[in-house]
Amino acid sequence: MTMVLVREAVGQTLRAARTAQGRTLRDVARDARVSLGYLSEVERGQKEASSELLNAICTALGLSLSGVFAQVASELKSREGVTLTVVDAA
Amino acid sequence: MTMVLVREAVGQTLRAARTAQGRTLRDVARDARVSLGYLSEVERGQKEASSELLNAICTALGLSLSGVFAQVASELKSREGVTLTVVDAA
Repeated sequence: MTMVLVREAVGQTLRAARTAQGRTLRDVARDARVSLGYLSEVERGQKEASSELLNAICTALGLSLSGVFAQVASELKSREGVTLTVVDAA
Repeated sequence: MTMVLVREAVGQTLRAARTAQGRTLRDVARDARVSLGYLSEVERGQKEASSELLNAICTALGLSLSGVFAQVASELKSREGVTLTVVDAA
């Protein structure tokens, strides 16, 4: 069974926003005052971002927290949909 | 400045769902296989829930992850609204 993970949906949302802005990891990490390695791991869904650092990253990207989590909810819903389809086909 | 924290919106959403179902912390913690203290801290916004344990808690409550995070986004938006109002009035 594929488990849908919130940190993966968060990471994908943040990475999509950053690349849509044509910005580098280094640039956003500097503005958010987080390490480049931390931001990279968060974007790849390998690390849970703390609420405080999520705020800093969203601020660096010029995004509202509510907008990011509306996108996360949408991303989770699409992944849940895929899982259901696979279950139906089995 | 009031900082809106994701873990507080997550905790409020989970607690509201549990109490709406008339269930105790002990009951949900047992079903989710997390400690009562952990669930209590998550509900109070004092601990960041890991993605894996969030899945377990949502499953124990019979909620989809996407539904919970749609609610979290809505909760964050209402808190951001309050913050903006205060800023406008200052």
